Amino acid sequence: MHIQKVENRVINVYQPFIDKANDLLTPLLEEKVEPIGIVETKKDQDYIHGWKAEKVEAIQSLKNHALGKGDSVIVDFGEHLVGYLSMRIVPVGSPPDAPLHVKFTFGEMPVEVSEPFSEYNGWISSSWLQEEVLHVDVLPEELNLPRRYSFRYLKIDVLDTSPKYKVSFENMHCMTVTSADQTKVVTLLHKDEMMKKIDEVSIKTLQDCMQDVFEDGPKRDRRLWLGDLRLQALANYETFQNNDLVKRCLYLFAGVPDEKGRVSANLFMKPSIIADDTYLFDYSLFFATTLYDYYMVADDKETLEELWPIAYRQVELALERLDERNIVKDDPTWWSFIDWHEELNKQAPSQAILIYTLKRVIKLAEILQDNRTSFLEDKLVEIERATVEHLWSEEVGFFVSGDLNQRSWASQVWMVLAEVLDHESSKRLLNKLIEENPAIGMNTPYMNHHFVEALLLVGEKEQAISFLKHYWGGMINDGADTFWELYNPNNKEYSPYGSHLINSYCHAWSCTPTYLIRKYDL
Amino acid sequence: MHIQKVENRVINVYQPFIDKANDLLTPLLEEKVEPIGIVETKKDQDYIHGWKAEKVEAIQSLKNHALGKGDSVIVDFGEHLVGYLSMRIVPVGSPPDAPLHVKFTFGEMPVEVSEPFSEYNGWISSSWLQEEVLHVDVLPEELNLPRRYSFRYLKIDVLDTSPKYKVSFENMHCMTVTSADQTKVVTLLHKDEMMKKIDEVSIKTLQDCMQDVFEDGPKRDRRLWLGDLRLQALANYETFQNNDLVKRCLYLFAGVPDEKGRVSANLFMKPSIIADDTYLFDYSLFFATTLYDYYMVADDKETLEELWPIAYRQVELALERLDERNIVKDDPTWWSFIDWHEELNKQAPSQAILIYTLKRVIKLAEILQDNRTSFLEDKLVEIERATVEHLWSEEVGFFVSGDLNQRSWASQVWMVLAEVLDHESSKRLLNKLIEENPAIGMNTPYMNHHFVEALLLVGEKEQAISFLKHYWGGMINDGADTFWELYNPNNKEYSPYGSHLINSYCHAWSCTPTYLIRKYDL
Repeated sequence: MHIQKVENRVINVYQPFIDKANDLLTPLLEEKVEPIGIVETKKDQDYIHGWKAEKVEAIQSLKNHALGKGDSVIVDFGEHLVGYLSMRIVPVGSPPDAPLHVKFTFGEMPVEVSEPFSEYNGWISSSWLQEEVLHVDVLPEELNLPRRYSFRYLKIDVLDTSPKYKVSFENMHCMTVTSADQTKVVTLLHKDEMMKKIDEVSIKTLQDCMQDVFEDGPKRDRRLWLGDLRLQALANYETFQNNDLVKRCLYLFAGVPDEKGRVSANLFMKPSIIADDTYLFDYSLFFATTLYDYYMVADDKETLEELWPIAYRQVELALERLDERNIVKDDPTWWSFIDWHEELNKQAPSQAILIYTLKRVIKLAEILQDNRTSFLEDKLVEIERATVEHLWSEEVGFFVSGDLNQRSWASQVWMVLAEVLDHESSKRLLNKLIEENPAIGMNTPYMNHHFVEALLLVGEKEQAISFLKHYWGGMINDGADTFWELYNPNNKEYSPYGSHLINSYCHAWSCTPTYLIRKYDL
Repeated sequence: MHIQKVENRVINVYQPFIDKANDLLTPLLEEKVEPIGIVETKKDQDYIHGWKAEKVEAIQSLKNHALGKGDSVIVDFGEHLVGYLSMRIVPVGSPPDAPLHVKFTFGEMPVEVSEPFSEYNGWISSSWLQEEVLHVDVLPEELNLPRRYSFRYLKIDVLDTSPKYKVSFENMHCMTVTSADQTKVVTLLHKDEMMKKIDEVSIKTLQDCMQDVFEDGPKRDRRLWLGDLRLQALANYETFQNNDLVKRCLYLFAGVPDEKGRVSANLFMKPSIIADDTYLFDYSLFFATTLYDYYMVADDKETLEELWPIAYRQVELALERLDERNIVKDDPTWWSFIDWHEELNKQAPSQAILIYTLKRVIKLAEILQDNRTSFLEDKLVEIERATVEHLWSEEVGFFVSGDLNQRSWASQVWMVLAEVLDHESSKRLLNKLIEENPAIGMNTPYMNHHFVEALLLVGEKEQAISFLKHYWGGMINDGADTFWELYNPNNKEYSPYGSHLINSYCHAWSCTPTYLIRKYDL
């Protein structure tokens, strides 16, 4: 182990873990994809974000478009892609007597090639908006853009050529990259077309997020987050079965804990591995549950034994956060994620996630014959008792969270997943939740996933299917080629970042329907 | 010879000539130059374009500037450079959780890093404005910009980082390139400091324009133009003595005439040699005079013999343009260059350039014992007689041009250089020109060069020195590190392109004072 200092933080680097992770790195799979048409986008309030993409010409005619100053064209690749764009740019007219100045704008959704990025005014960096402005000095040019993009639509704006020449575009293609091997996926036979489609879009979403690590979103942030990893791993076990990629990611997280042994919420992979300075209560615990899920599928005891101390340490640290009542201390800062929701109190769902984790960690401790097993078991009993005593409100029939006794969907869903109540009580709780619909709802597919899994856990299979089709099917009906980071059917413009331009429209935590459908045989 | 078709034009490609030119290509000389300070630009009407650059910090403090969204800094390299920019970009703060979006703006003059390029509205392509906007995904980054720039000032605008980090810049440098070997230049000993300075700036201008060919301007158009080549070659013979580069350029022009044998006004060198579709009466003739000048310096008879047919052909084609009076036909189009002047009639100066060329071509014909020598001599007599008969106005005491009998500076200057009148008459004509100052004046250093050489030809050495110091010294007093494409002391904002932002501030045709000073021992 050596110590790395990142801006006053101490990171303990376990090089053998990093080396093991790097040994598991394999070359990405590539595929050449060509565009399928020329489209125009039009304002239409019946479409998501108010923009509709309409095919206006066959792609074969692209090469006949001679574009000069101020001209533009939008090309449709027909599906969501993650990869590298190439094309040949050919001059038309006199020999080019000035450089070409050209802008490329990449859109996962029509809105991104319709509304100018200059109007973006959200709080996260505008540098995520996918565009390139460049000069080409010599034409013809075989242009190979060096950055990776996540897109379906490409808008080309010719900013200037010269009065003596224009340009046309030929041999345009994208070399896609992924670490997901499609041949490993068993085709789903399902009588319901929408369920088949949801499964397909889930798998495409997962595929495009599977790179050298499980990324959260290939457009943004292109990073390994623990919360996303946990769900991607579950979907992966049912589809691509790239278990080594899960193993690699676990070793990466285990390789760079902080001085207390805390696992970071996410890792940067370049220029070399760096643990982010964000630490989240729930995400750190998910290191342990992700290890549990991995072991249950892969039966890889060596990895379990090696990573067990790190997993156990996350539980220890979570237990340290308990107050004298055995309830996790609340906090006004971003200490636990749960969902993108400004008003959501995180206490009760975090308490539930601790319980959820403890139950799995106890199983791992038993497997490893760890002598702290009975300590964990005793602790679980105390915590579950405290949870019911302090967070369950008999009066309102809901778990409540924080000083203001907030009733939220998240609290109920996670308490059901943690199996704090008995089966029938959990079932009643979920049905009451649906019926009474408290104001603090769910914003992300991430949170909605947990709701559907909670329904399945209590045996409400029909409701689960119905909600899956309503929510993920809703995205498909709204034009999703891959599932989105954010979707609120009641507020389709919702963005926690201040603009739907910056949202990610292929996001790992939204890929779980394939897991739910296949695992629970929906 | 093979035939190349460029947009309905036929180009006769003489591959052995192209091959010979390519054999003369040598690697460019490189030098690493670091910036000398951090500057701010301020509005000040006492300075050219109304902008003054003021040093505000030592360059050593650059690395301490942490720049976030909206921040900028201007770096001064202390002298005009042509080359490739490199730097190290380092993140400051948390690990970068979003790409860096950054803009680099390059300025030969303070105005270019002070007024936004978005306000440019001139008629030639805005793509010449030197800026790059790019995303950097991984930091720290060793950035090596692939394009060549021509600049002294570099403005860095950080468009966005993220709220969690900023960036700083280290190890910034420019790797300059030139085919001019400074060690070949004999230092000028001169008692007049301004004359020494004019000589130095001339040489620097020439140096920065000498690349794989003699370029007209390293910022714009970066191209081999015959009119510029002729003057660069003259300055080169007195300084860097890279005669092979002149030879190379002559072979290039000779390698791609059109189907009539006409030499193009300029050549594109990339992706492979292409003759531009611009043909100019004066520039084509200058192929012959440039060959003459080269032979007189290099004494290279083999090249003279090989290129003689092409040179002779330019004269033949010019003679074909004579009307029955032996006067070149006027034309409202851009058929002859002479100067950047919208109202200038080109007839009389073009007639003079034909005579000027004929006198040199006759000398070459004699050397080669060409049996067309006497034909040329007879033709010269006829043309000179016609010129005096039809273009000289006894009434006004000036040569006149075009249907409206325009009196211009250019007509008189070129008639003097062509030695159409006797020595004393030429001298009187020039003095009368200065005294009466007709409205159609001179706009470019190119035209002003010819004026000074005309003064020297008639023995007005003091006037020549005085004008040299007034005109080129005026540019130095106005802040020139290299001489400018355009300078009108009476209208310093003049641009034939509609904006001083697009003017070239290191331009080959302005480098001639070193030739005039050294050749005429001023």
